[in-house]
Amino acid sequence: MPKNLNFLASRFQQQLSFITEIDQLKQIIRQTLLLDSSKQENDAEHSWHMAVSIIILAEYANEKELDILKCVKMALIHDVVEIDAGDTYAYDEMAHQDKEEREQKAAQRIFGLLPPDLNKEYTDLWYEFEKGETKEAKYTGAVDRYMPVLHNYKTQGKQWVKHNISADMVLKRNKPIEEGSAFLWNEVKQMVAKAQSKGFLR
Amino acid sequence: MPKNLNFLASRFQQQLSFITEIDQLKQIIRQTLLLDSSKQENDAEHSWHMAVSIIILAEYANEKELDILKCVKMALIHDVVEIDAGDTYAYDEMAHQDKEEREQKAAQRIFGLLPPDLNKEYTDLWYEFEKGETKEAKYTGAVDRYMPVLHNYKTQGKQWVKHNISADMVLKRNKPIEEGSAFLWNEVKQMVAKAQSKGFLR
Repeated sequence: MPKNLNFLASRFQQQLSFITEIDQLKQIIRQTLLLDSSKQENDAEHSWHMAVSIIILAEYANEKELDILKCVKMALIHDVVEIDAGDTYAYDEMAHQDKEEREQKAAQRIFGLLPPDLNKEYTDLWYEFEKGETKEAKYTGAVDRYMPVLHNYKTQGKQWVKHNISADMVLKRNKPIEEGSAFLWNEVKQMVAKAQSKGFLR
Repeated sequence: MPKNLNFLASRFQQQLSFITEIDQLKQIIRQTLLLDSSKQENDAEHSWHMAVSIIILAEYANEKELDILKCVKMALIHDVVEIDAGDTYAYDEMAHQDKEEREQKAAQRIFGLLPPDLNKEYTDLWYEFEKGETKEAKYTGAVDRYMPVLHNYKTQGKQWVKHNISADMVLKRNKPIEEGSAFLWNEVKQMVAKAQSKGFLR
């Protein structure tokens, strides 16, 4: 095999090892129920649904000049660290204490399966999403938070009631949505008010 | 409510009805097994895995000047018609006879939930993917076909054996990969040869 083909094969093997590794995301279970309440969704399903929502709802981002491909890439890979670190429930304050450390280790291992240039690209994207400072990270983060509120509202707050969640907790947790999309934040506030009046939330 | 806010609310409600409708994709089961053989994957999981693979493997597309966002959008929505039409197994020739008609009806209903401009954008994208004539449709289609071959190979051909699939059937079915990515087609041919020698394929 000529030298450049050897290089190509090894590069491809690294890409393939990442692609096969992240298959496990299909088994990382979140607290959120499907809209028909039949089961809890997994991270792969959530990442797909979030990516579709990002392209369909882009017009509601606060910033009109967005790099949507960057947002979609972030959405697609934002949860792969949970293969090692597990899903941390939004309202589990104890588990959030060491979440950052667990997820950073996971990012290093999982994106580290990729060739160096792609490792850098996706590690950087993941950190950008986590920090939430750029316009793309803010909008992507807004949709990430919006989805479970929608699911909880549409499933009569079953998981909110189960975990004894209050309206104030949901509003506090989801306030950052406003930085990415004032429109979606307004939707969330309306859902929370309705949920509380219907007894879906404390 | 001023007229423009009324319009915005109704537009958003249409977008939301699409987003909530496609939640059902998380329950459309494919023949393909997860890589640890623990269960069959669903269309939402497959669409996510395919979208990630599209961005990670883009350099192997035959055409170097690709609109990757368009490819990712196609991947994200390519299977939503299966909510109505069901998953048609790649090697089920009977079911393929009326597949086109069933899926066109489904596309009309499901993308029809969206506001007119987005309905047109996503219906057009879906037809473009189905026709497989543009460079983006060819590459996206190549990754769509590559994924289940990879899964079947990595799970010792369990589903191939179960459905009595031969090497020739896999090669015939997957030949269009070559039009989108000669590199991935070469990978598929190698996997099929190895699979046959190991008894994963007739």
